[in-house]
Amino acid sequence: MERLVRTGLLYDFYGGLLTEKQQRVMELYFLENWSLAEIADAEGVSRQAVHDLLQRSEKIIEDFEAKLGLLERYSRQQTLLTAIKDRLQTILNQTAESNPIKPELLQIKEQILQLIESEN
Amino acid sequence: MERLVRTGLLYDFYGGLLTEKQQRVMELYFLENWSLAEIADAEGVSRQAVHDLLQRSEKIIEDFEAKLGLLERYSRQQTLLTAIKDRLQTILNQTAESNPIKPELLQIKEQILQLIESEN
Repeated sequence: MERLVRTGLLYDFYGGLLTEKQQRVMELYFLENWSLAEIADAEGVSRQAVHDLLQRSEKIIEDFEAKLGLLERYSRQQTLLTAIKDRLQTILNQTAESNPIKPELLQIKEQILQLIESEN
Repeated sequence: MERLVRTGLLYDFYGGLLTEKQQRVMELYFLENWSLAEIADAEGVSRQAVHDLLQRSEKIIEDFEAKLGLLERYSRQQTLLTAIKDRLQTILNQTAESNPIKPELLQIKEQILQLIESEN
């Protein structure tokens, strides 16, 4: 998994355990894509201080992941949900429009998509 | 949600953040259903000490839940997965044995049951 994606997901799980300042800087960097220089400017600190704060914050959430493994659990779930969605799509492709089951299956697919997206 | 069930689920998410001793006592009490007296005996401490340790451990994992809300997220998912499973069951009940879709739908149901159970 790409570092940016991984850190974003880890932040989604564990961000609430960081200080307000750590959360703010993580969000600016990882969600808003600000540069280190831009964040340093906004926070009134050096570029190096922002770099250090980001590294420390990443280490904190990686340590929580090592203990709780929520991202790993989430990834397994996503894999299973995606397999279910694909299997359902295959069935849908084989089901005639006139089949009364079709709208029911489409609703199930919608609910599964909702699950896949909402967890993120 | 009943306290025992709630604490068991919270422990499942956040237990990794407790000390080894806290984990051991929580498991004896909440998973193995030992009494305070039995745990006190096994740990060589007073019944009151076990009681205090359990209260402290519960407070720690409740504090993590207040910050991260993983049980709340999990509960929402379980509700949605159960709704999907029920909808699928209704479709299965209306599908003739001879319908080639039926075994496919049964497999999807199995996968959803797997998800409902594995997250716990």
